[in-house]
Amino acid sequence: MSKNLTKRSEDYSKWYNELVVKADLAENSAVRGCMVIKPYGYAIWEKMQAELDKKFKETGHQNAYFPLFVPKSLFEAEEKNAEGFAKECAVVTHYRLKTDPDDASKLIVDPNAKLEEELIVRPTSEAIIWNTYKGWIQSYRDLPILVNQWANVVRWEMRTRLFLRTAEFLWQEGHTAHETRQEAIAETEQMNNVYADFVENFMAIPVVKGRKTESERFAGAEDTYCIEALMQDGKALQAGTSHFLGQNFAKAFDVKFTSKEGKQDYVWATSWGVSTRLMGALIMTHSDDNGLVLPPNLAPIQVVIVPIYKGEEQLNQISEVADQLVEDLRAKGISVKFDNRDTHRPGAKFAQYELQGVPLRIAIGPKDLEKGTVELARRDTLSKQFIQKDDVVNTIETLLVEIQESLHLKATQYRDSHITEVNSFEEFKEVLENKGGFISAHWDGAAETEQKIKELTKATIRCIPFDAKEENGVCVYSGNPSKVRVLFAKAY
Amino acid sequence: MSKNLTKRSEDYSKWYNELVVKADLAENSAVRGCMVIKPYGYAIWEKMQAELDKKFKETGHQNAYFPLFVPKSLFEAEEKNAEGFAKECAVVTHYRLKTDPDDASKLIVDPNAKLEEELIVRPTSEAIIWNTYKGWIQSYRDLPILVNQWANVVRWEMRTRLFLRTAEFLWQEGHTAHETRQEAIAETEQMNNVYADFVENFMAIPVVKGRKTESERFAGAEDTYCIEALMQDGKALQAGTSHFLGQNFAKAFDVKFTSKEGKQDYVWATSWGVSTRLMGALIMTHSDDNGLVLPPNLAPIQVVIVPIYKGEEQLNQISEVADQLVEDLRAKGISVKFDNRDTHRPGAKFAQYELQGVPLRIAIGPKDLEKGTVELARRDTLSKQFIQKDDVVNTIETLLVEIQESLHLKATQYRDSHITEVNSFEEFKEVLENKGGFISAHWDGAAETEQKIKELTKATIRCIPFDAKEENGVCVYSGNPSKVRVLFAKAY
Repeated sequence: MSKNLTKRSEDYSKWYNELVVKADLAENSAVRGCMVIKPYGYAIWEKMQAELDKKFKETGHQNAYFPLFVPKSLFEAEEKNAEGFAKECAVVTHYRLKTDPDDASKLIVDPNAKLEEELIVRPTSEAIIWNTYKGWIQSYRDLPILVNQWANVVRWEMRTRLFLRTAEFLWQEGHTAHETRQEAIAETEQMNNVYADFVENFMAIPVVKGRKTESERFAGAEDTYCIEALMQDGKALQAGTSHFLGQNFAKAFDVKFTSKEGKQDYVWATSWGVSTRLMGALIMTHSDDNGLVLPPNLAPIQVVIVPIYKGEEQLNQISEVADQLVEDLRAKGISVKFDNRDTHRPGAKFAQYELQGVPLRIAIGPKDLEKGTVELARRDTLSKQFIQKDDVVNTIETLLVEIQESLHLKATQYRDSHITEVNSFEEFKEVLENKGGFISAHWDGAAETEQKIKELTKATIRCIPFDAKEENGVCVYSGNPSKVRVLFAKAY
Repeated sequence: MSKNLTKRSEDYSKWYNELVVKADLAENSAVRGCMVIKPYGYAIWEKMQAELDKKFKETGHQNAYFPLFVPKSLFEAEEKNAEGFAKECAVVTHYRLKTDPDDASKLIVDPNAKLEEELIVRPTSEAIIWNTYKGWIQSYRDLPILVNQWANVVRWEMRTRLFLRTAEFLWQEGHTAHETRQEAIAETEQMNNVYADFVENFMAIPVVKGRKTESERFAGAEDTYCIEALMQDGKALQAGTSHFLGQNFAKAFDVKFTSKEGKQDYVWATSWGVSTRLMGALIMTHSDDNGLVLPPNLAPIQVVIVPIYKGEEQLNQISEVADQLVEDLRAKGISVKFDNRDTHRPGAKFAQYELQGVPLRIAIGPKDLEKGTVELARRDTLSKQFIQKDDVVNTIETLLVEIQESLHLKATQYRDSHITEVNSFEEFKEVLENKGGFISAHWDGAAETEQKIKELTKATIRCIPFDAKEENGVCVYSGNPSKVRVLFAKAY
């Protein structure tokens, strides 16, 4: 496996693309805009899924599965309250291929197999799910409905990038139904907090929690909460969203319930989701010019053992030590791989595991056998130490925790040092151009101002942070009065 | 929840459809042929997934994810060696919806957004995966590839039934690549055995392992192994298949490797899958006229506790006992629910859990408080007993194992008593009509005979069992010589 990654300082975007492919995370497929998630990348995604799924279930949610297709008419029903909904989507119009009568080696779409109504491959499932909930909800006894779905969705993106923006991607989408506005808002908040907790503490990525402005909101939502992360190139990445949908979908799909008091009312809704985009956030938060850096919580292999030997006898002696270590580490719940392949040299193995971000590497050679030591290398700091064989398990247990914390700390320091308060539009542009990151600035609350700033700088309002302190000021662009600073940034 | 299930003896098919819907497993959706898998049904599927996934990983497989869409041209490449491939599939021809210029409340497919090449929603992924493997495989060092995918697939079925035959269904598909024919055959066998072990021991469904005849084989396979189960109405159900694909796909997609000896050769392949169809097998193997019967291994709720009380004071006293039981049972890894809803009466709760197949039900009333007992009811036998509070946990642990075994035994007895050896075509038809089940009969090995028998009786050869004893005989239909009995049945 050849490394030769482009340096981040040279071309961040190229570095990212190369890393995703060379670290065996994903690759482009024969289908425009659709990716193949390779086993190593998928193993990381599985760890994310498992942890999120546990958190969803702990907060009372159940999984279900709804159809891949949405009949066009359901989109029309939804469109009434979601004017801006993107319509770039995959449309199924026929249900049969047949052999070309003029050329038996070709297949053609059978013109006689046209669907009466076109089906859209779901870009998100509110429409099909609320059309289903109509049949599930009659009375307050049927509420709340707390359902999540793990699924693939398709949005016909013109410019795609692995994990960050692909035509097909994997995600989870929660869709809940409630008796009251308050309960739905509490759910929206709860799930945004679940995401923040997961991304901060499991992925070691610091996030800002806040609320989207009206123009950045999900079409059909009354309020969109989000978590925003900051990548190493100073661009923001929206890592998760949680929407309070009010009664919009209940009204579009006529979903009413009878309350305890016998009154009819429309149901209150939320939806919330995170996707394989989080893989992009993971890569761009921790990795370096040598390749991927993984927080131990997400590493498919936490420790790799590489033997350094000449001849079978040495390998056998090393294997004895390694096998015991594997056993001891596994007993502690640590995932470990002993790479004794004879088809690759130690140097190639070192390069591979560095590129793939394995948090800890143990090398054992003949000198180590004599001294009763092993060489232990940390991927995040690239530091090495020799330790006594008997200390390996304890040291590794400690280090895995330390690495997880250290990555979070490092990313937090970077993020915190890239939140800049500015008080004029000149300063705004100067910081955006030369430093990047989040810009904390006063904004007058007008969509036109937001739009104008976007046109002039490409920066958007990432969120109105929940913890923003109230403060009298004037909008950096319009000079109109403002009471709170919002966070601007260029974003993925 | 109203029961009133149709009796199996009256109309088995109607009983099945009603049960699936009333037990909250699944329902039809607004999309023709596509189902909604409801949370209770999905929870059972998740248990199947978890166990299968563990077995796949234990046998060295990794998960990955490939695109939902297959470009039409890849099907053409595949078609060259798979003449009979079903072409009833969902075809994506356009990538945009837009507002109808004549009616702003309508959406139309944008005629300017036609795809250059049509995309097929995957009915199975051999084509897209082998097109991908071409880039992954150069040398023997890259082999074997042992990959599985959990995914949704779509086949445009005209007549659909929940779980058994739906246009979209969920499944896993393993796709492996090997250096040698022997290794690929061993993999095919291994995975058929993994399925058999899972279905027998986890789902408590007895299966016959065998090989498909040429006409029942997967198009593109050199050999198809399968596991065949028998439903209560005497019809067989194919519960899983494992295909030895030879070098067919490697040739179609030009996937060669350099061997240790430096020779170029095409790669050897397998594929294997099971689907949400297994839910149908589960239901039709164990359930009865009162509803679902679930083996404890697959029950989302293994034990339910229902309080029988008048007034809050009694409920509080019962809750004290129940809460302790919940804690003790959970500590043993048993899933338990205390249903203290005050919106439903005990009778309604009993009916619901019976319908949903919860293996054990505990009822606690004021009399029980006095005597220090609880009432324990088994779903499978509908038997009840009173037991001392202190014995509950031990009794339940024992019973859960016993129920699992008992369901398997009962199903095995039914299956074994429905394998009938016949020696003439008259007998064949008589048994098929009056008794059903598997018919063990001599067959001359000719596809025309198989086809003729199918036309005359609707019975197909389910498999040539691996454990069929060799025996000289004559074909029940043609009278030609035969050396082995095969299993015929009508099938789902």
